[in-house]
Amino acid sequence: MTNAITQSEVEEFRNRTPGCAGRIHLNNAGASLMTETVVATQIGYLELEADIGGYEAAEARADDIESVYGSCAGLVGAERHQIALVENATVAWLQAFHSVRLTRELGEGHTIITSEADYGANFVAYLHARDHFGTETVVAPCDESGAVDVDALAGLIDDRTALIAITHAPTNGGLVNPAAEIGAVAADAGVPYLLDACQTVGQMAIDVEAIGCDFLSATGRKYIRGPRGTGFLFVSDAMLDRMQPAMLDHHGASWTAVDSYRIRPDARRYENWEFNYAAVLGLGRAADEALAIGLDRIEHRVVELARSLRNRLTAAGFPVYDLGRRRCGLVTTAIDGHPADEVEAELARRGINISVSAPESTLVDSTRRKLPPLLRLSVHYYNTDAELDRAVNALVDIAATR
Amino acid sequence: MTNAITQSEVEEFRNRTPGCAGRIHLNNAGASLMTETVVATQIGYLELEADIGGYEAAEARADDIESVYGSCAGLVGAERHQIALVENATVAWLQAFHSVRLTRELGEGHTIITSEADYGANFVAYLHARDHFGTETVVAPCDESGAVDVDALAGLIDDRTALIAITHAPTNGGLVNPAAEIGAVAADAGVPYLLDACQTVGQMAIDVEAIGCDFLSATGRKYIRGPRGTGFLFVSDAMLDRMQPAMLDHHGASWTAVDSYRIRPDARRYENWEFNYAAVLGLGRAADEALAIGLDRIEHRVVELARSLRNRLTAAGFPVYDLGRRRCGLVTTAIDGHPADEVEAELARRGINISVSAPESTLVDSTRRKLPPLLRLSVHYYNTDAELDRAVNALVDIAATR
Repeated sequence: MTNAITQSEVEEFRNRTPGCAGRIHLNNAGASLMTETVVATQIGYLELEADIGGYEAAEARADDIESVYGSCAGLVGAERHQIALVENATVAWLQAFHSVRLTRELGEGHTIITSEADYGANFVAYLHARDHFGTETVVAPCDESGAVDVDALAGLIDDRTALIAITHAPTNGGLVNPAAEIGAVAADAGVPYLLDACQTVGQMAIDVEAIGCDFLSATGRKYIRGPRGTGFLFVSDAMLDRMQPAMLDHHGASWTAVDSYRIRPDARRYENWEFNYAAVLGLGRAADEALAIGLDRIEHRVVELARSLRNRLTAAGFPVYDLGRRRCGLVTTAIDGHPADEVEAELARRGINISVSAPESTLVDSTRRKLPPLLRLSVHYYNTDAELDRAVNALVDIAATR
Repeated sequence: MTNAITQSEVEEFRNRTPGCAGRIHLNNAGASLMTETVVATQIGYLELEADIGGYEAAEARADDIESVYGSCAGLVGAERHQIALVENATVAWLQAFHSVRLTRELGEGHTIITSEADYGANFVAYLHARDHFGTETVVAPCDESGAVDVDALAGLIDDRTALIAITHAPTNGGLVNPAAEIGAVAADAGVPYLLDACQTVGQMAIDVEAIGCDFLSATGRKYIRGPRGTGFLFVSDAMLDRMQPAMLDHHGASWTAVDSYRIRPDARRYENWEFNYAAVLGLGRAADEALAIGLDRIEHRVVELARSLRNRLTAAGFPVYDLGRRRCGLVTTAIDGHPADEVEAELARRGINISVSAPESTLVDSTRRKLPPLLRLSVHYYNTDAELDRAVNALVDIAATR
């Protein structure tokens, strides 16, 4: 039984989050509110750079920078050498994807198995790879709950299957796909498995060993509550033995002689030379704060708040579009006759931050389900029941206009 | 005749640069000192993000973010649609390089013409491309001044030449290569031309039209005086017609239907979805400050200070390793019998920031010239003659020990 986050802890978390004072922030799957310490970490480091110089500051804080790898590893049950710090989740995912392609394990005639609600960024990369490298994409169907049908996915694997690439929690709803079950299938088949965990890292307990993924991509700005422009990639030891980055510089490899180079043994081969260290340190701080609270406790509260929000929406007569048996902090709805963009803007005027999930972000799923642009309300552990009440009341109010 | 930067302007620039108070910063080719306004721009934006949310802040400041493209374009005489904002110079360069490769204009049996003092990051990419795509690298010789011999380079071009990739100013000395003369040769031959201008943008007047390059990569942290973890890529209209990024997401292309996508018409196809906007705005502010001073005026002062530093070093009996007829703000020397790392550390203890240019950064050039690890003193317009005196006196003092 999880030791639940208490009301007084929530109050404390909110007191340490400047943005809680003026807004109801339900856009945590866009970018969460940073804590005052995450902001102060970045500001303090920028001031140090201004005082002593950019390279000099990095040298002075080298140990703190190094420890960010351990903090990020801790979020997903990985080891420090398996983490690459990159600029964002797309870079993490693309570096992993093109890495498989570079080794020619993914090329002409090979297939990528993905899921219906996989993210637009990933589908653009699949189609781009089709046009340039002759790969094909196979979309695994979903089961009656809306999650990836693992048995059906297993049945799609054949000699041509070069990669299984799944979005852990799609951008357009609360669905959490059965990542570990898919991992077991991938392991059985010996197929590399790339998990896009950009929505889930920071809101739930994740263990790359238990999931069995070979690559996992994550972003700092969403549920980790880190700075924008940060992310990381986990790479399994098996992939470190086999894969090279598609784009490599002298950070990922040493230039050892005029005509040779040596790729570094750890996941940092997927990084490049230069970093915004203020943001890196902010990411580390945010990860440490999440770890200090406990990801199982965070998950418990997020799931409860999201369930409670769905119930409130249903009770108020709004549709809920979230699929899956297991669900996370993303909640999607719509107001009939009110364009989502206008509702978002009106809520913003009332001090409530949400976002709109456009059909183009998940076109396969949106087309199949005939989804309109959705209102996405994404909760985090620092949100409160009172905030959910106010948000739903605002929706009711907007629905009543015109 | 350039209207020279005055002493009182220098005082004003120094007053606006917090780091000038406590250090003699001669590591501007590593990372320049940021001005107080560049720091304040970042801090102000981070605080806005903390107050209203990360996505909400980007929307509130969308016009300012957009104007950063114009500011960066202004630094190199480009147009706004020709600029991609990326995380650093390596990413800019690699995106350009792999773009030429993706179109199959650079592949099996094709050659890349480069220069002896080209940067390590680039050579690692050439060797990586050799191993995976069967490309070959041809190193253009230098003339008696040490710059790229343009006639010799022209003579190396044949049917197999797919790319000319030159470092404008190498990392290991003051040399400025004849970029525009090389551009004329590239244009004559119809070969794409990638200029690594990471050391030069911000310290000299650069005009991509006059140079005739197809791609130009730049970093924010060096002479532009921007934040770490920022950079940009210029892409010519001719390349925008022909080239695609090797790594593409749904920012670089729209996902238009389940099985199709459309690459955006401008250089932002080379970007990806997520940005550290605090750093982006800091970069824009730094670019604006450079433009307000005038890049020709900056260049004039930097060249004068560097020349004066070389004279001081020579007068004090130290070797100067800088090549070329035209030179910039990078100055390299060494103290016989004193390992460069130790000298760097001792200078740091005395409040003087320099860096060490290791042979591995420019292995072809370093091997040919049998270069030791070099002490690199890189001046910017806010440095003073008094600082140069103190730095050279410190070197004399260190040389006299032991």
